[in-house]
Amino acid sequence: MATLEELRMQLDEIDDQLVNLYESRMQVCREVGELKVNTGRKVFDRQREREKLEAVSAKVSGDFNKKGIQELYEQLMSMSRKLQYQQLVGAGALGRLPFIEVDSLDKSNARVVFPGVEGAYSQAAMQHYFGENCNSFHVRTFRDAMEAIEEGSADYAVLPIENSSAGAVDEMYDHLVEFENYIVGETVIPITHTLAGLPGTKLDDIQRVYSKGVALLQASRFLNEHGNWQQISVANTSIAAKKVLDDQDYTQAAVCSAYAAKVHGLSVLEENINDVPNNSTRFIVVTNQKIFLHDASKISICFEVPHESGSLYHILSHFIYNDLNMTKIESRPIEGRNWEYRFFVDFEGNMADAAVKNAIRGLREEARNLKILGNY
Amino acid sequence: MATLEELRMQLDEIDDQLVNLYESRMQVCREVGELKVNTGRKVFDRQREREKLEAVSAKVSGDFNKKGIQELYEQLMSMSRKLQYQQLVGAGALGRLPFIEVDSLDKSNARVVFPGVEGAYSQAAMQHYFGENCNSFHVRTFRDAMEAIEEGSADYAVLPIENSSAGAVDEMYDHLVEFENYIVGETVIPITHTLAGLPGTKLDDIQRVYSKGVALLQASRFLNEHGNWQQISVANTSIAAKKVLDDQDYTQAAVCSAYAAKVHGLSVLEENINDVPNNSTRFIVVTNQKIFLHDASKISICFEVPHESGSLYHILSHFIYNDLNMTKIESRPIEGRNWEYRFFVDFEGNMADAAVKNAIRGLREEARNLKILGNY
Repeated sequence: MATLEELRMQLDEIDDQLVNLYESRMQVCREVGELKVNTGRKVFDRQREREKLEAVSAKVSGDFNKKGIQELYEQLMSMSRKLQYQQLVGAGALGRLPFIEVDSLDKSNARVVFPGVEGAYSQAAMQHYFGENCNSFHVRTFRDAMEAIEEGSADYAVLPIENSSAGAVDEMYDHLVEFENYIVGETVIPITHTLAGLPGTKLDDIQRVYSKGVALLQASRFLNEHGNWQQISVANTSIAAKKVLDDQDYTQAAVCSAYAAKVHGLSVLEENINDVPNNSTRFIVVTNQKIFLHDASKISICFEVPHESGSLYHILSHFIYNDLNMTKIESRPIEGRNWEYRFFVDFEGNMADAAVKNAIRGLREEARNLKILGNY
Repeated sequence: MATLEELRMQLDEIDDQLVNLYESRMQVCREVGELKVNTGRKVFDRQREREKLEAVSAKVSGDFNKKGIQELYEQLMSMSRKLQYQQLVGAGALGRLPFIEVDSLDKSNARVVFPGVEGAYSQAAMQHYFGENCNSFHVRTFRDAMEAIEEGSADYAVLPIENSSAGAVDEMYDHLVEFENYIVGETVIPITHTLAGLPGTKLDDIQRVYSKGVALLQASRFLNEHGNWQQISVANTSIAAKKVLDDQDYTQAAVCSAYAAKVHGLSVLEENINDVPNNSTRFIVVTNQKIFLHDASKISICFEVPHESGSLYHILSHFIYNDLNMTKIESRPIEGRNWEYRFFVDFEGNMADAAVKNAIRGLREEARNLKILGNY
């Protein structure tokens, strides 16, 4: 019987030949790519790929090897496709981008909408991005803000997409799919909740606490020390503060920012009641035009995945082969289709980059319902 | 210049040789496997695999081909490992599992906890899984149920993990990481919300509607037609129904199941107020022992990913190369670390399968803080 060393030498010899054949194969694929560039023929030929898989599988014996050679060829052919997409990009044959590059946003003349009322965290995010004195108005819900953008009554909306401790704002992901609005910017602001009430309110008298649901969650350790307080969800933390002012009821309090408390004439009864220190929220800036800033460096997309083993994995390979760093992946159920998911991926890049064009081209052919949510 | 047909003939010739080399290589790997079975040597030799990747990559030219040949060899070597694990299993030489296989759960003598009160959807799920007359008690929150299991005051807990329209129950994912409890079963039940109130309640008199936050969301279209109703979150839909009964207030209503309404002596004021038809929720059955049923077919794991380009993708390759179908992927923020994520993956398989052992071995080496949440 051969020793491990002898067997490994045999493997090394086989591998020398395998590697040479691999290089020859990629060279022929490159020539096929040139031909496709010249003739405008599509890169992905599903019929040809199926035939190839059947052919190689028929040539080997045993179930294990049949399965193995098919996997290997799926990878080889996917690699060839990526090479050919690169060639198309290199030849300028990828066509026009659906998004228009702009040098800057006209922040000083922009009309901006935010959800909530005076003192909302999204107002703070808006001022951080557009400046303290920007021309703005507010609506009640995230959906109202998306509608204001879609119909054009505002140029931009500022909306929360992710909190550092609570995670994704699921509702916003669904809105980004539903509306034809696009992300053009983002900004992160610290979130520090306080408990606020009418001046003179005593902690012991409080019976009901109002806030946005996620804010109640983020302050749950403090609130649960007062287990008898009823926790009531409203659309926004600033709306909670306004309600406490309007009701003039000393048994009520709000979880909101110190700024919201001040705006609505409330006293801070307890400062910083966050469960987690350094809590912050990422807000996106949304508009109804397909534009991106020339220095944009992050792209958000969403897509559905066919029900086949490995298909999500193969789709993600477009990022890897184009050297694009994926920074985030989320999944959300697809409305009306039980247990099927839409994936949301963030990756680094600018839509003018060849690597990005290349990846998007491949994704569009292989994923279902690809939507580019924005480049920012 | 060659035609497409000529180039494809060249590819076919290369492929004939490639396929032969592949079969020879797998044969040598099989001999290596026999040797490893006889000598007790480990299948996965990270050092040898790294050297091989460097060697093949050095032999080809250009970044694209270097990356490609590495991908191809990662797949080839993973295939060899899979073959060798099969040989080990055939020889009865694969090590012990951290989970203990059981033939069945003793459902008739089990003590089961569910969150909420009589009439909760989790009670319905529990009865669906453990039978109508199972020995049970209830606690207020999901966390309370996880604690009851951890301390052993109940054998099993039944808890919601995912809704077909609202998506993941984020809180449960966090609990599965925090507690040393494991999933041993799952069951899906339909969720049909009704609006319920004291007998004689008129829709026009209602001012406040109580329910679990996610249930209010799932009925938001109906509820928003009555925009003046205050929507108040409580821990559970059945707790909402009980509150409406206890308060004896005709201005209050609950969003809950028809069964919860009946249990708490309420009248159904409006049937099926779901936004989406066919709404259903998947519940998991959790215990404090590391056990799995011999016919279990789904595995849930979670892990963190190092901050490197492509690392999530490479980690997912362990499922693909071991022929394990990934059915779900979720990400959640890691507590205390801003903008870092923990990934939750479900895939098909049983812990006794060689492919699963193989994948878990690879995942443990490459991902951070891998936790097996259960096989069910």
